[in-house]
Amino acid sequence: MIYSYEQLHTFTLHILSKIGCSKEQAKTAADVLLSADVRGVDSHGVARLSGYVRLWEKGRINATPNVRVVHETPSTAVVDGDGGLGLVVAPFAMKVAIEKAKIAGTGWVSVRNSNHYGIAGYHAMQALQHDMIGISLTNASPLVAPTFSKERLLGTNPIAVAIPAKDQPPFVADLATTTAANGKLEILQRKGMDTPTGWVQDKEGNPTNSANGVKEGGALLPLGGDREHGSHKGYALGSVVDIFSAVLSGANYGPWVPPFVAFLEPDPNPVGEGIGHFFGAMRVDAFRPADEFKSHMDNWISRFRAATPTPGNTRVLIPGDPERELEAIRMKDGVPLLDSVVRDLKELGERFGVTL
Amino acid sequence: MIYSYEQLHTFTLHILSKIGCSKEQAKTAADVLLSADVRGVDSHGVARLSGYVRLWEKGRINATPNVRVVHETPSTAVVDGDGGLGLVVAPFAMKVAIEKAKIAGTGWVSVRNSNHYGIAGYHAMQALQHDMIGISLTNASPLVAPTFSKERLLGTNPIAVAIPAKDQPPFVADLATTTAANGKLEILQRKGMDTPTGWVQDKEGNPTNSANGVKEGGALLPLGGDREHGSHKGYALGSVVDIFSAVLSGANYGPWVPPFVAFLEPDPNPVGEGIGHFFGAMRVDAFRPADEFKSHMDNWISRFRAATPTPGNTRVLIPGDPERELEAIRMKDGVPLLDSVVRDLKELGERFGVTL
Repeated sequence: MIYSYEQLHTFTLHILSKIGCSKEQAKTAADVLLSADVRGVDSHGVARLSGYVRLWEKGRINATPNVRVVHETPSTAVVDGDGGLGLVVAPFAMKVAIEKAKIAGTGWVSVRNSNHYGIAGYHAMQALQHDMIGISLTNASPLVAPTFSKERLLGTNPIAVAIPAKDQPPFVADLATTTAANGKLEILQRKGMDTPTGWVQDKEGNPTNSANGVKEGGALLPLGGDREHGSHKGYALGSVVDIFSAVLSGANYGPWVPPFVAFLEPDPNPVGEGIGHFFGAMRVDAFRPADEFKSHMDNWISRFRAATPTPGNTRVLIPGDPERELEAIRMKDGVPLLDSVVRDLKELGERFGVTL
Repeated sequence: MIYSYEQLHTFTLHILSKIGCSKEQAKTAADVLLSADVRGVDSHGVARLSGYVRLWEKGRINATPNVRVVHETPSTAVVDGDGGLGLVVAPFAMKVAIEKAKIAGTGWVSVRNSNHYGIAGYHAMQALQHDMIGISLTNASPLVAPTFSKERLLGTNPIAVAIPAKDQPPFVADLATTTAANGKLEILQRKGMDTPTGWVQDKEGNPTNSANGVKEGGALLPLGGDREHGSHKGYALGSVVDIFSAVLSGANYGPWVPPFVAFLEPDPNPVGEGIGHFFGAMRVDAFRPADEFKSHMDNWISRFRAATPTPGNTRVLIPGDPERELEAIRMKDGVPLLDSVVRDLKELGERFGVTL
């Protein structure tokens, strides 16, 4: 089924209003959630809406949070999300980073007591309109095994960096620090297909090609896949994301990060509050005149885009190209949803008296 | 042959003095260079000394640079390295970042007009003694092909992050954004062995297992190896390093980065000055009390170190463990050098009247 951006945005906004979000917060959250759907990160869009609602029903999401700065210096802050939707807490924190950057040149905000914040790239991109570079990191429920570890100790912990250009579209990197994101496993599961080597290990800690490997107690592997292909690098990067997001702020880290799914209980002995994020904003003119910087970004992007492709490929992509191209299509033609997602949303709508 | 730290440090210091470095700068440079040898990054230590000297002979390294801040805000600065040794320019810039952080909470310094700066981790680690997190990035000569590109457009562009703990040793990640560093290829070349899949492509842009692939006009591959294993992520990370290091500062970026080897000429139409670096320092107490942060880092490190290992492995490592363990051994037992490196150093010593 295909739905328009407006249909899904309105539906999301109404559902979130029903659970008690203010109109303004519901709109912010719907903006973030829908940006995942139009940019092709389907696993982080409306498909997750009922998951957020179930967490609220369990008392693990606060629909009327008092999100606030609890510590600060000229270029830093810690934000307490008060258990609110990450979709609301993250835009607040990113705004703080941007305001800090206006005065100090850069702004860096670590966040505790939050929940899943949607797609990382959306938050980083908020900096672009201010001629700033935006950075967005978050930790997440443990699904990833460090190199040589049988246990899952990290989330897919993404890194997003958005960099403005002049006539070219911006550079937007948004990547999980794993070989493959969980969403890709789900696609293979539905098709009954195996995964490539280097994506998953089984519950004994051995490499597997089973798309059900994680479900059955195994783990996703850090970017690199195995030691020989640099998985210790993906593990190190995922760890940095975890530490910046949670050890700096006072959120839960590593295996203590609360699960996103409502049917799994959080650790009874947490080491912090909720999940953690980390945001950065850097004014480009804190380094050199913005126009000069952006002209060189245009040159950087043009040169990389003009690179001779390898056999069988037609072009070299700039980070952010695929998502931006898909966004243009989906804003026009609508967002295709899986039948299972549509059923889930309709059921949710019925419970709250909202029509999809 | 095995040499003590002191022998190699003194030799390096004397050679650098002979080419005109001040005593203070020669000492700083020797400290940086030797840290690579003791930490096991042999390709970035004294093995490179004659390479630096050859660049100086060609007039591409300035032994008496006027390294200075050319632009700043409360939390940022741009440093012009005046064509100096990166081994000298980088410690200066990292100090600026640390001084900024003392006042503004964080400090971020982009550097232009520099040269190869040794191992990334050394510079990040300078922040540790101040209870700060240190970050160190640099671009480098183009040897890496972006995903789907036949051309080499990026360097191995490393990311280093050093994070202080309390009773535990610090967390020190230091990683090239490629599957494998060039030094590992050289080891396989000497042994006449093939590389694993995903390390290298040949000059036509096809995957190859030849350890000579890069030498023969091919390229190193971004972390991930190929698209299916996430090489677009390694490519994106290497690109961020390039942009932060060079587009922010006004250095050369992408394919314009000057080659480290003196027998290859820099591009006659550069887009900036020299090579670029980027440094960050964040006071941990700009986020939460330092003691609290460091206690939680101890907990983070202990938990990860205690993880059950996968079959065939005995322990889970924390980023920085292997280098720190090797450093302890080599400071005591000395640094083993390849015969070819010893010959090269002796030749250098004869030319400058310095005994190894």
